[in-house]
Amino acid sequence: MKKLVLAYSGGLDTSYCAKYLSKEEGYEVHAVSVNTGGFSADEIKTMEEKAYQMGVTSYVSIDALTTFYQKVVKYLIFGNILKNNTYPLSVSAERIVQAIEIINHAKKIGAQYIAHGSTGAGNDQVRFDMIFQILAPEIEIITPIRDLKLAREEEIEYLKENGIHMNWEKAKYSINKGLWGTSVGGSETLTSHSSLPEEAYPSQLEASEPKKVTLSFTKGELTAIDGESNSPEKNIQILNEMASKYAIGRDIHVGDTIIGIKGRVGFEAAAPIVIIKAHHLLEKHVLTKWQQHHKEYLANWYGMLLHEGQYLDEALRNMEAFLTDSQKNVSGDVFVTLLPYRFELNGIASKHDLMNASFGSYGEMNKGWTADDAKGFIKLTANQNKIYYHVNGES
Amino acid sequence: MKKLVLAYSGGLDTSYCAKYLSKEEGYEVHAVSVNTGGFSADEIKTMEEKAYQMGVTSYVSIDALTTFYQKVVKYLIFGNILKNNTYPLSVSAERIVQAIEIINHAKKIGAQYIAHGSTGAGNDQVRFDMIFQILAPEIEIITPIRDLKLAREEEIEYLKENGIHMNWEKAKYSINKGLWGTSVGGSETLTSHSSLPEEAYPSQLEASEPKKVTLSFTKGELTAIDGESNSPEKNIQILNEMASKYAIGRDIHVGDTIIGIKGRVGFEAAAPIVIIKAHHLLEKHVLTKWQQHHKEYLANWYGMLLHEGQYLDEALRNMEAFLTDSQKNVSGDVFVTLLPYRFELNGIASKHDLMNASFGSYGEMNKGWTADDAKGFIKLTANQNKIYYHVNGES
Amino acid sequence: MKKLVLAYSGGLDTSYCAKYLSKEEGYEVHAVSVNTGGFSADEIKTMEEKAYQMGVTSYVSIDALTTFYQKVVKYLIFGNILKNNTYPLSVSAERIVQAIEIINHAKKIGAQYIAHGSTGAGNDQVRFDMIFQILAPEIEIITPIRDLKLAREEEIEYLKENGIHMNWEKAKYSINKGLWGTSVGGSETLTSHSSLPEEAYPSQLEASEPKKVTLSFTKGELTAIDGESNSPEKNIQILNEMASKYAIGRDIHVGDTIIGIKGRVGFEAAAPIVIIKAHHLLEKHVLTKWQQHHKEYLANWYGMLLHEGQYLDEALRNMEAFLTDSQKNVSGDVFVTLLPYRFELNGIASKHDLMNASFGSYGEMNKGWTADDAKGFIKLTANQNKIYYHVNGES
Amino acid sequence: MKKLVLAYSGGLDTSYCAKYLSKEEGYEVHAVSVNTGGFSADEIKTMEEKAYQMGVTSYVSIDALTTFYQKVVKYLIFGNILKNNTYPLSVSAERIVQAIEIINHAKKIGAQYIAHGSTGAGNDQVRFDMIFQILAPEIEIITPIRDLKLAREEEIEYLKENGIHMNWEKAKYSINKGLWGTSVGGSETLTSHSSLPEEAYPSQLEASEPKKVTLSFTKGELTAIDGESNSPEKNIQILNEMASKYAIGRDIHVGDTIIGIKGRVGFEAAAPIVIIKAHHLLEKHVLTKWQQHHKEYLANWYGMLLHEGQYLDEALRNMEAFLTDSQKNVSGDVFVTLLPYRFELNGIASKHDLMNASFGSYGEMNKGWTADDAKGFIKLTANQNKIYYHVNGES
Repeated sequence: MKKLVLAYSGGLDTSYCAKYLSKEEGYEVHAVSVNTGGFSADEIKTMEEKAYQMGVTSYVSIDALTTFYQKVVKYLIFGNILKNNTYPLSVSAERIVQAIEIINHAKKIGAQYIAHGSTGAGNDQVRFDMIFQILAPEIEIITPIRDLKLAREEEIEYLKENGIHMNWEKAKYSINKGLWGTSVGGSETLTSHSSLPEEAYPSQLEASEPKKVTLSFTKGELTAIDGESNSPEKNIQILNEMASKYAIGRDIHVGDTIIGIKGRVGFEAAAPIVIIKAHHLLEKHVLTKWQQHHKEYLANWYGMLLHEGQYLDEALRNMEAFLTDSQKNVSGDVFVTLLPYRFELNGIASKHDLMNASFGSYGEMNKGWTADDAKGFIKLTANQNKIYYHVNGES
Repeated sequence: MKKLVLAYSGGLDTSYCAKYLSKEEGYEVHAVSVNTGGFSADEIKTMEEKAYQMGVTSYVSIDALTTFYQKVVKYLIFGNILKNNTYPLSVSAERIVQAIEIINHAKKIGAQYIAHGSTGAGNDQVRFDMIFQILAPEIEIITPIRDLKLAREEEIEYLKENGIHMNWEKAKYSINKGLWGTSVGGSETLTSHSSLPEEAYPSQLEASEPKKVTLSFTKGELTAIDGESNSPEKNIQILNEMASKYAIGRDIHVGDTIIGIKGRVGFEAAAPIVIIKAHHLLEKHVLTKWQQHHKEYLANWYGMLLHEGQYLDEALRNMEAFLTDSQKNVSGDVFVTLLPYRFELNGIASKHDLMNASFGSYGEMNKGWTADDAKGFIKLTANQNKIYYHVNGES
Repeated sequence: MKKLVLAYSGGLDTSYCAKYLSKEEGYEVHAVSVNTGGFSADEIKTMEEKAYQMGVTSYVSIDALTTFYQKVVKYLIFGNILKNNTYPLSVSAERIVQAIEIINHAKKIGAQYIAHGSTGAGNDQVRFDMIFQILAPEIEIITPIRDLKLAREEEIEYLKENGIHMNWEKAKYSINKGLWGTSVGGSETLTSHSSLPEEAYPSQLEASEPKKVTLSFTKGELTAIDGESNSPEKNIQILNEMASKYAIGRDIHVGDTIIGIKGRVGFEAAAPIVIIKAHHLLEKHVLTKWQQHHKEYLANWYGMLLHEGQYLDEALRNMEAFLTDSQKNVSGDVFVTLLPYRFELNGIASKHDLMNASFGSYGEMNKGWTADDAKGFIKLTANQNKIYYHVNGES
Repeated sequence: MKKLVLAYSGGLDTSYCAKYLSKEEGYEVHAVSVNTGGFSADEIKTMEEKAYQMGVTSYVSIDALTTFYQKVVKYLIFGNILKNNTYPLSVSAERIVQAIEIINHAKKIGAQYIAHGSTGAGNDQVRFDMIFQILAPEIEIITPIRDLKLAREEEIEYLKENGIHMNWEKAKYSINKGLWGTSVGGSETLTSHSSLPEEAYPSQLEASEPKKVTLSFTKGELTAIDGESNSPEKNIQILNEMASKYAIGRDIHVGDTIIGIKGRVGFEAAAPIVIIKAHHLLEKHVLTKWQQHHKEYLANWYGMLLHEGQYLDEALRNMEAFLTDSQKNVSGDVFVTLLPYRFELNGIASKHDLMNASFGSYGEMNKGWTADDAKGFIKLTANQNKIYYHVNGES
């Protein structure tokens, strides 16, 4: 029997795959979904029922919340990573961990085939295929949606013919939810000029009163909120619950897809945005200029390579070593105020704070150095350009 | 006679310098102020009167608005430059142009001395000294405030003794205004944990209704607002007028000063923030991935070197050549909505938009390539890591 | 009639293509070869005769020496570009210009098809295909060698069957010659551990006496050798003639191919190596630290993207603007001694030399600054880390 | 009693300091020299005797060879660091470790003062002062040579007057020797155009027959030569002995000093150059493209900051974490041939070699991918620029 693992989400495409691969292609289909924070217990239950209706031999839901945080999200925070200065890489990051979990499952149960439901026009196919091939080159990749290029209607029709009468009505906005944010696609995001309407976002504005929150970081990780300690991944969820009521963290990401076309996608990511900005502020106080500078360089690359499905490149392990080492002193509190549609960072408190009046305050003279020291500093700092202008004149 | 040019602002420090240098030190003091968008005609009039009261031989106000835009602001926009991802470099950028204008004036009138009122603990002394020394090493720099380290009270006392009875009461917040933003310092910004109160900001919230604005860029420059054309510097002022009513663009910058201590300063910069974000969005649509990537690298450096007073380094000219060349196709409209304390970028329209459905839309199959093309692409893209894992196993 | 332009080199593969495409596939084959410095007039004559024997309708040799220099080589010199710190990108650079010339020729004569003889395992196919597709997406690319995967013997057999009895004996070393260097492949370069034997290199050691040469650069271009002026491309040829007699510039390049596998190739590039090292030395004297630093960053990328066939990416135009601007003062003489298998750079003379004793010599006190100035400089430069260690202790 | 630690080398300057500080200034002088591989036991003996003649209270020689290797040299190898693509940072690297050892010694013996003999015109003063101030801000720095700006003759005269009649004749070339290379300064290096004569170099050509050597690396460290294992620092010494006989590794470094002037210095560094090039070659075979790329970026910076005395900046610790992590698979043999004035890298053998024919050889078709895969890869790789040219036309 041809054993196949299918990355299953319960949506139309992967449901079609489940049915089609088991019935028409004769695979023994083992459906797997990986929960990186987007599915409730109820949703998983529904997914399971659906999967069996499609004729799968087994269905497994893998809880990868902590793995997701430990393998990826942690470094996105360490690196203050916002792709194109905007997008917390919500979906890109999830796919990586999902692909790894699924291929590991396939290896564990001895599958010879692995299937996903991505089309041939997006980023996800690259992430899935890359990780599958690298970690298990011996397992063949099966992608009916990409190969057959079926219209939604054809898929629905096929399922109907096979006795499956579900409501596959397309939602006005396609939503992908996970620990690190929710992406929102709609007809507007296919244009360059339209923004998403208020109702497109799953979280709606519910709060109006400003709310002060203290985020406590320990070596770069969010270890407590308002003094209450929890695991970082739990804290992300708590903060997201809180901040989503303020409709914080909405934006539209415009970026270059892995396959060279431009893409546009809306998202809401209340906790990710607040955490990254708070973490970054703390770093501005505790890291040296050069630490910040080179962290930013590497983090940009970490984000780009992750986004492009290159997570397994050993270069990312090397970057993680740098990022982890850079967080030694990134501990302290950040004071945030949540407000409708926005938030303010009020300041920080940290025993590693390098902004410390005992060494002199900006703009005010102090005992650390004299006027003559400053003049000497400037004179020598000007040296090279003084020579340059003397030699070459003004350009 | 010892001819001296004094960088004059009308404040206590430079007023003290004017009096002290002319009376005690016997210089013939020529006061100069450089308007980079911060002074009204009335303020200049007052400055002039004050200067003469201090005993200067001449006073000149140099209008450097266009120079400021052409020499610096233009490139800050081309580069989407926000220091530490926050601060538009309002003051840093101004000082550079002020220093150049002042030293050129000193050379023109044949001064042997040049004076400024900066202390020995800030960034401005570096910017002034550096540019003065490089462009005119033969002119001696005189800095009474830095050298004498006087308290405000001592300066006031000295002026009183010399018959000058003005109201030098210190404002609660020290404000520096210019075309590219207004900095705000106060007791709060000397701490790490306090934010500025609402009233610290010169511009207060006056508008509440959302307002849609169309910003038109031509080769990276803001050439029209809502269809009305003006010079870019004029457009910055118009937009600032409009957006300041929404209290947009307020934040606190935490950064590394040139002299190695951390500094914290509030600012409001409505137009700069809106323009940079709008320009950046347009670029995401019209530039290639690698253009954006390397532009960002150079722009970060342009900002850092400018901030640190290294504007005259020839490297910045080379960067400007890159930045200018990169703007060839950065033309089009950006649609913005102004809202209280924030703004939204709704989208863009440009004939150079690379997000163009005729080449395939993100996530939807198209005629540009087939499923097999995509598989081939991914297979070869995975090649190196496939080999790496085969050779080395999982790490 | 199906009009096809064939990139023709006279070798077995493209000869096969010429015959096969005209006879079996019914194309009207127009052969083109592009001379980027590797072909003599005799070789072109032979190529032409061969082409017509293969049944082509027309043959054209395009002289692209100056184009090659102006479009690519010039920037490789400006950027001191050696891939992986070793390889002057001899072949990579040529292919780009050849591809552009060929596709332009195809457009000019109204061809609907364009063919090249590259296999599916190397870099050249990427360079050809990419440039063809980008500049003329309407012209279909035909690649018999890649598609049919024929063995040499099969190709020879086919040609024999068609009455073509040439000597196609495979040379022990495959050689690709051009203005910017000669690549050398052999059985050794397919291993990781063997070096090429002396006889593998086309240029053999002929000279033994040290020879002094003066290279004169004007704005980064090699404008004269030993005082004799010529066009830069002519000078490269003159110098190469001279330095090849010393067997200078041999090495083996180990690099990452565009398709993800490692590749190893020998080369000799006497003039390129001498010129790049001489130009770099001159730059060390006339450019500021930051110019050199950022030039190197961009040049590395220019080399990588060029190597990977991305020459047409607009980012390279932006980089060229930077590189060109950086050469304003890169004028002067570099004194070189040629020796068997190596060369020495003795020094430079330039009116833009920033190493100028009148500003102080390294290690010797001078009138530019005092001991106290130096102490002040160091004190403030140490500021941040002094604070860091005070706050955090030793790590 | 004022306890002072003096960084002592036995040369004229520090001998003068010893005498002057103890006799004229009343310090209790404790001389310390730090051996980073440049001093023989005899030289240390002589130094000790000299020190006591100068009137020091104590003399200590600290053996810092292993510390030097572990703290700095190791990372210079991991990073393939050659400043300005030429100089292994021999002296810069030593000074750092010497400064740290000396200040630690001063703290251990409870000194209130620390002295060095550098002038105010070089890099060394910056390295010493910076590290002294950061690690022990409470210890005052005393620098007679910098402050008094004495001529050699004055120093000799003073010592004579105090009964010290030694031969202080200035060597024609000033030599600084250490584990990681020997610097050579002379009248030629004060010009821009002259090279050092053969006799200026301490190691003279003694061998003429080519000699094959196998260097074995383990996680980036040189653990064996020709199969014989030793500590990496010992191996550096063994290889240096061997390669110096071939007069390998000579060159002149032209660089930007920390104080903004250009400097030029000769050096011989046989082992460092051979090791770095061999290590780099091994990396080209075992690291991914992106590992190499980002390693190079960080290593350039590591070299620059180390050179400029910023060794204690925490950013360097973060970089070391990256570099160390990147060496996991940098194990294997490198085959080198030593020749008069030069060497050849013949190839490598490593079980981590990614150039592995079983995955396809460069330029030859294989079973890893098909012609169609390659076409798909190229088509999608060309996507963005295809769109760019369609939208914008040729530039």
